[in-house]
Amino acid sequence: MSDYTFGIAIHGGAGTIEKSLMTSEKKAAYMEALETAIDAGYEVLDSGQSAISAVEAAVIELENCPLFNAGKGAVFNSIGQHEMDASIMDGKTLHAGAIAAVRNVKNPITLANIIREHSDHVLLAGTGALEFAEKFNIQIETDAYFHTDHRFEQWQKIKGSDDFQLDHTSEKKYLGTVGAVALDQNGNLAAATSTGGMTNKKFGRIGDSPLIGLGSYANNNTCAVSCTGSGEYLMRAVTAYDISCLMEYKGLSLQEAAEFSILERLTALGGDGGVVSIDKAGNMAMVFNCDGMYRAQRNKNHKEIAIYK
Amino acid sequence: MSDYTFGIAIHGGAGTIEKSLMTSEKKAAYMEALETAIDAGYEVLDSGQSAISAVEAAVIELENCPLFNAGKGAVFNSIGQHEMDASIMDGKTLHAGAIAAVRNVKNPITLANIIREHSDHVLLAGTGALEFAEKFNIQIETDAYFHTDHRFEQWQKIKGSDDFQLDHTSEKKYLGTVGAVALDQNGNLAAATSTGGMTNKKFGRIGDSPLIGLGSYANNNTCAVSCTGSGEYLMRAVTAYDISCLMEYKGLSLQEAAEFSILERLTALGGDGGVVSIDKAGNMAMVFNCDGMYRAQRNKNHKEIAIYK
Repeated sequence: MSDYTFGIAIHGGAGTIEKSLMTSEKKAAYMEALETAIDAGYEVLDSGQSAISAVEAAVIELENCPLFNAGKGAVFNSIGQHEMDASIMDGKTLHAGAIAAVRNVKNPITLANIIREHSDHVLLAGTGALEFAEKFNIQIETDAYFHTDHRFEQWQKIKGSDDFQLDHTSEKKYLGTVGAVALDQNGNLAAATSTGGMTNKKFGRIGDSPLIGLGSYANNNTCAVSCTGSGEYLMRAVTAYDISCLMEYKGLSLQEAAEFSILERLTALGGDGGVVSIDKAGNMAMVFNCDGMYRAQRNKNHKEIAIYK
Repeated sequence: MSDYTFGIAIHGGAGTIEKSLMTSEKKAAYMEALETAIDAGYEVLDSGQSAISAVEAAVIELENCPLFNAGKGAVFNSIGQHEMDASIMDGKTLHAGAIAAVRNVKNPITLANIIREHSDHVLLAGTGALEFAEKFNIQIETDAYFHTDHRFEQWQKIKGSDDFQLDHTSEKKYLGTVGAVALDQNGNLAAATSTGGMTNKKFGRIGDSPLIGLGSYANNNTCAVSCTGSGEYLMRAVTAYDISCLMEYKGLSLQEAAEFSILERLTALGGDGGVVSIDKAGNMAMVFNCDGMYRAQRNKNHKEIAIYK
C-alpha cells in the first residue's frame, strides 16, 4: 500500500460560464467529459504509474474532446488556423517540456512531454517544434480534424476585427485551457497544461499555458499547479510558481497559497482565472475568482466533478 | 533631491570567459562598451526619467554593440538567421512586454517596450510580432546588418551538426545575453533582457530571456532582476521571480536572495549563470556561479565595471 494519498485534479477552463446558456444536455456532456478525463488519469496512478503519465493521460482525454479549448476543440486564430500551446513539468527532477504556436499535432501535451524527455531545451515554438517532432512517433492531424462548428462560429463573429476572445462567450469571459496535476504512489508530483489560446488571436501571441512557472509548475518539495484564465495576468503574476513559493518560503498550506495567489494577487491585478493544485501530501486545492471552472478531483477516498462555485 | 538612491546595473552575459583568450585590446573594448551602456542608462535616471526608460536606453547600447549577443551582435541560428528574444517589465504596474524569435528588428528591447505599452498581450512571437511592429516606428535592418564575422565563424564551426552553443567559446560556456535593472528617482523599478539566443539553435527554441518571471522580473515591492546564463536551467528554476519571492515571502535581503537563487538553487540544478538586480532601496546585487559576467553598476556614489570575479 502506498504511503502517499495519491490523487489527481483537472480543469477544463475557468471564467464566466453563463447558467442561462448551459442546457442540461450541455452540462451533462461537460460533466461526462470531465469524468472520463479524471478517471483516465486516476487509473494511471492507481496502477502505480507516474504522476507525469497520469497528467498526460488526463490531458489527452481533454484534448480529444471537442468541448474544451485544446487539441481537437482548439479555437481559430485570426487566419483560421489552430495554434496550440502546452507544457508539462516533473516535480521530481524539475525537468519540463513545452510547445508554443504549434499546428496539426493531435495531442500537444504528448509533444511537450517528449521535449521534456528527449530535448536539451524546454520550449520549442512553431514549425521548429514540428520539425523536432518528426523524429518521434507523434500523431499529426489535418486542419479538418481541428474544425469544430461552434469554434468556427465564434471566429466568424469577430474575424477581421481587432477583437479577440479568450474563449467562447461573446463577453470574452470564458477562459479556455485544460490542465491536470497529480501526486503518484511514489510521492512524485507533475503538472500539465494545454490550450488553443484565444479566438482570433494574432501577432503570434503566446499566453501563460506553455510557460514554466506561469501556466504550469511542479516541485516535489511543494506542489504541482496548472493555471487557467486571462493569460497575460497569470504571466505578470507568475501564478504557478507564486503558489509554490508561498508554501516554501512563507509556510502557507496549499489551500492558503492558492487562495492568496488567485483571490488576492491575480484579482488585484484585474485578472480572471483559477488553478488546480496538489501538494506532496496529496491535498488538493481548486481555486478560482470567476463564476465557474470546469474541474474534477479524485483520490482513493473522494471523487468530485463540478462547474460552478 | 531624490528620496531614493537611484541607480542602474547591467550585464552583457556570463559564463566561462577564458583569460587566455582575452587580449588587453579585447578587454578594453568590452569595458568601454559596458561603460557606454551604464552611463547611457544612468543619465536617463539622473535627468529624472523613469527606470523603464533607463533600462531600455542601456540595453539599446548593448544591442547596438557587436560584442554582445543581442541586436547587432546576435548569433546565427541553424539556418544562418538572427532570431532575437527580449523582455521588459515595469515594477510599478507589473506591466510587461516581450518578443520571441523575432528577426530584423534593430532594437528588440524597444519592440518589447512598445508591446508593454500598447498591446493587451505580453509575449508576441515570430512574424506576428513584426506584423504588430508595423503600426509603430520600429527600425528594421537587413540581415546584413546583423552579420558579424566572429559570430559567423562560430556558426561555421558547428553548422550542420546537432551541436549548439550558448555563445561563443568552443566549450559552449559563454552564455550571451544582455540586460539591465534600474531604480528611478520616483522609487520605480524596471528590468530588461535581450538576446540572440544560442549559436546554431534550431527547432524554434525559446530560452528564458523573453519570459517574465524567468529572464526578467520587476516589482516595486521587492526588486528588479535580469538573468543571463543557461536558459533552460533558469527557466526550470524560475530564477527572476524566485529572487523576488525570497525577499517578499522569506524576508531575505536582495544580496541574500540573489545568492541563494544562483549559488544554491541554480547550481544544484546544474545551471550556469548570473543576475544583476536592484531593490527598492537602491541596493544592487550582481551574482554569478561561473568564471565571469560582463557587468557594470552605477549610482551617485559608485561606479563599477567588471568582467571576472
